Amino acid sequence: MKAIKVLQYGLGPIGLEIVEVLLTRPWVQLVGAIEIDKNKVGRDVGDLLDPPRKVGVTVSGKARDVLKRTSPDIVTHATSSYIQTIHSQIVEIVEHGASVVSSAEELSYPFVKHPELSKKIDQQAKEKKVVVLGTGVNPGFMLDTLTVALSGVCQKVNSIRAERVVDASRRRLRLQKKIGAGLSPDEFGRRVAAGKIKHVGLPESVGLIALAMGWKVGEIQERISPVIAESALSSDYIEVPQGAVAGVRQVAKGILAGQELVVLDLRIYLGAQNPHDSILIDGVPPVDMTIRGGVHGDRATPAIIVNSLQKIARLEPGLRTMIDLPPIAPAQSLPEEDRSVMLKTF
Amino acid sequence: MKAIKVLQYGLGPIGLEIVEVLLTRPWVQLVGAIEIDKNKVGRDVGDLLDPPRKVGVTVSGKARDVLKRTSPDIVTHATSSYIQTIHSQIVEIVEHGASVVSSAEELSYPFVKHPELSKKIDQQAKEKKVVVLGTGVNPGFMLDTLTVALSGVCQKVNSIRAERVVDASRRRLRLQKKIGAGLSPDEFGRRVAAGKIKHVGLPESVGLIALAMGWKVGEIQERISPVIAESALSSDYIEVPQGAVAGVRQVAKGILAGQELVVLDLRIYLGAQNPHDSILIDGVPPVDMTIRGGVHGDRATPAIIVNSLQKIARLEPGLRTMIDLPPIAPAQSLPEEDRSVMLKTF
Repeated sequence: MKAIKVLQYGLGPIGLEIVEVLLTRPWVQLVGAIEIDKNKVGRDVGDLLDPPRKVGVTVSGKARDVLKRTSPDIVTHATSSYIQTIHSQIVEIVEHGASVVSSAEELSYPFVKHPELSKKIDQQAKEKKVVVLGTGVNPGFMLDTLTVALSGVCQKVNSIRAERVVDASRRRLRLQKKIGAGLSPDEFGRRVAAGKIKHVGLPESVGLIALAMGWKVGEIQERISPVIAESALSSDYIEVPQGAVAGVRQVAKGILAGQELVVLDLRIYLGAQNPHDSILIDGVPPVDMTIRGGVHGDRATPAIIVNSLQKIARLEPGLRTMIDLPPIAPAQSLPEEDRSVMLKTF
Repeated sequence: MKAIKVLQYGLGPIGLEIVEVLLTRPWVQLVGAIEIDKNKVGRDVGDLLDPPRKVGVTVSGKARDVLKRTSPDIVTHATSSYIQTIHSQIVEIVEHGASVVSSAEELSYPFVKHPELSKKIDQQAKEKKVVVLGTGVNPGFMLDTLTVALSGVCQKVNSIRAERVVDASRRRLRLQKKIGAGLSPDEFGRRVAAGKIKHVGLPESVGLIALAMGWKVGEIQERISPVIAESALSSDYIEVPQGAVAGVRQVAKGILAGQELVVLDLRIYLGAQNPHDSILIDGVPPVDMTIRGGVHGDRATPAIIVNSLQKIARLEPGLRTMIDLPPIAPAQSLPEEDRSVMLKTF
């Protein structure tokens, strides 16, 4: 089977880790890399990896040129969380006849926040017979797709409660700053009010779950609050005095007729004692799932993006979501028509 | 959207619970019921439910007649575990242009044990443009599909270990007998040797995982051993003296070049202290998942079968597996083209 031609769009931390994973897949041919940062343009993409090595793909700042020249089957995309920012990039990619798998959080379920742009992208993708998909670990997997997958064992679901608790101590400095670690509660409040402390994606996850369940959700409530350090904390980068902010707690609720159908609870802070992902389904039968230690987001998002690539070509064209996709595994080969993978009978 | 016309084939305990779940779905029209048991033929299928009620569908013993008369879109099928037994039933259903979702364990991954019959079913389904799928809680979900779904977060998977521990105390008498509860270890051994004590499906689950991962598994080892009662046990039905058999442990391993890639460990016995389902993925990142209490199989298998129905029509025709299917939720409505399920923006 022919390799899938993939182009990486965006070479920040996530984009570079996507490249690392793409390079481990024998069924992927990396045909190009796009980045606006002038310090990266013109270099071999391998120079930006750790450890640096020769890859043979030169970083370009001109999206149109490289799309035209390389004709990728799929573009893996990691530039911004917001549809307003990325939609012209998506449109340009689709114009060139390539599918897109993006880490943009808003793209995981864009139909409510951006109905017009969603329709436009959907129609254009259908015309060009390609697929546009937003995914990642959160939104895209832990709080939404996995919840829907688990609900498959239920005859009936009454309500869902999922939480993700991340110990930020060993994460990137950028993430530690993003969650407000080390701030005073007052300063934290000001930054929340200014929209500077905010994880993008919880309402999108509520939307994906509601879509799968066939629930018309009347109202989404979202609340951001600080997690206060009960004693002094420190990471490699930041000192947090007692009483200061250790990180963030963000809760989104999907409510119908006064009933909390979906509650998603995300806590990311320094020194979290029992990091985990958990999904509790009140249903018949009930499901009480926990992933001990939680799933490492910086590892998982690039994995999910690359693992989804084999499934993209089989989806109906258009703007799709993760609940349209069969389970994605880190397959080392392209699927063969012969499905008898055992050499001996059993 | 038009309802899906569903016919139930087989009215044992699983078949009847499938009917119960079908009746809760407004998007399903139950058009017929087939059963060979003369005591059930001719009665309203609702007479066989608990509590009995009028459903308006008469049980028929003549499959061909009722298939022809009712023209179902999909047949939900629960008659036997074995391809040899069911394949003529499947062929007859497909001849009538209906898809099949079956609880037959061997059908969940039939390509190795029955390559010729698999090919025949696959070709016939493709000709008739219908889908044939084998599923259920185990094989079909807990040890295989869920494992594959979780692996989506991994850049790389080295090996997988999944276990399902079921407390048989509150399960049906038939299941308690099937696992050998109350037997002496010698009698248990004789029944294992005679093929009378055996859960069907662990090698099939290994096959599904290997197929998803792109692993060519060289060898499957399967071992059945008794779980011995350390002290006297009893259920509502069976007394187990100390030293007698409390139930069964069955382990299947998928091995490649001496390495245990997949180990599936199923224990079903009276008095299991900590029933659970767990999946441990040695990968990057690792995943350590547990479902506390485990998922109730008699509830889950009918749920999975009914929940899969909405996804069947969108699959490529042929003999498919659960890893071809998007996540299945207990949706209360058929999917709409409008995916903005929130009434208010967020």
